[in-house]
Amino acid sequence: MKTYRKELWFNTPKRRDYINITPQLEDCLAESGITEGMLLCNAMHITASVFINDDERGLHGDFEKWLEHLAPEKPYSLYAHNNTGEDNADAHLKRSVMGREVVCAVTKGRLDFGPWEQVFYGEFDGKRNKRVLVKIIGE
Amino acid sequence: MKTYRKELWFNTPKRRDYINITPQLEDCLAESGITEGMLLCNAMHITASVFINDDERGLHGDFEKWLEHLAPEKPYSLYAHNNTGEDNADAHLKRSVMGREVVCAVTKGRLDFGPWEQVFYGEFDGKRNKRVLVKIIGE
Amino acid sequence: MKTYRKELWFNTPKRRDYINITPQLEDCLAESGITEGMLLCNAMHITASVFINDDERGLHGDFEKWLEHLAPEKPYSLYAHNNTGEDNADAHLKRSVMGREVVCAVTKGRLDFGPWEQVFYGEFDGKRNKRVLVKIIGE
Repeated sequence: MKTYRKELWFNTPKRRDYINITPQLEDCLAESGITEGMLLCNAMHITASVFINDDERGLHGDFEKWLEHLAPEKPYSLYAHNNTGEDNADAHLKRSVMGREVVCAVTKGRLDFGPWEQVFYGEFDGKRNKRVLVKIIGE
Repeated sequence: MKTYRKELWFNTPKRRDYINITPQLEDCLAESGITEGMLLCNAMHITASVFINDDERGLHGDFEKWLEHLAPEKPYSLYAHNNTGEDNADAHLKRSVMGREVVCAVTKGRLDFGPWEQVFYGEFDGKRNKRVLVKIIGE
Repeated sequence: MKTYRKELWFNTPKRRDYINITPQLEDCLAESGITEGMLLCNAMHITASVFINDDERGLHGDFEKWLEHLAPEKPYSLYAHNNTGEDNADAHLKRSVMGREVVCAVTKGRLDFGPWEQVFYGEFDGKRNKRVLVKIIGE
């Protein structure tokens, strides 16, 4: 069995953002030399997300509006977690909706995706260095 | 290491539906000859979901009502994504709640499930051919 | 390839609770002797969750309030599922938000986590014996 590990780093200028990381995952896969197996990609921070959806900016705007509706950033006093001196309780909730990780099939050396599947890093508390882990196992 | 791959196809008569695909996954597992490892099952489309829950029609009705409450289909103008000519922005959001994929343990040649765990294909934008991927790795 | 399997049992005194199970997963990993691979941890019941977030009691209180807002326990008559004699439809929905499972990278014999990542068992219909599955594959 072969294994491969890499960290991807992000520092978004905005508090919230969605970044298509599919090309970086394809690079990792090529670098790994693994042709059959599974690729795990997860946020290493608990106020960010890795998820698969459409690379369409209108939809990303819909995500922003919808997540703010489900778990608004403000007022900060809405959340007990913010009593610790943080202001990011909403980011913990938003990431719970969008998910921490994706597991992708690796087939014949490719990410085995449907036609519109793209992997995104979802940042909900940015403006600082944060990491995503890529782990691939297989042969 | 052994690997196995199969696509399952669906075309639901309704826009939204829940289909128990556990028997098909069991068939895949038997066909693979893998007895220890992991099975990944994911929607290959970004307006559909694969998830594990109860095979109880009342609950599926509750899902329908609840997801419509969290991310209503209409008015279509509610969503920027629908300005692209689509009408399925809600389906992208619903699938985000329910999840893209499940990873299941394979133990002694069986899906290693609790007593009520059943795998469902959750369709949120049906009436057309759509695919689910099954990938199994192990030995 | 090596594989490892263990069941963890829980019986929470309250209907809803969050239990940090990271130390138990670390014990499983040590016991498995696996140093490179993937660890799957999933609820075996469909009214419970395994997820990764912060070990901060204020945040857990925020989860409680937020999930009750998204999918309230009462009135029980709100849900068709409860017509079967159950009263736990809300628990099926809450678990859908929080997720069934986590897949974690195993690197150099350790759970390959970011600084704040902790694994939780999320119970939404407790006061009875329930199980979590740990499956590790690798070498």
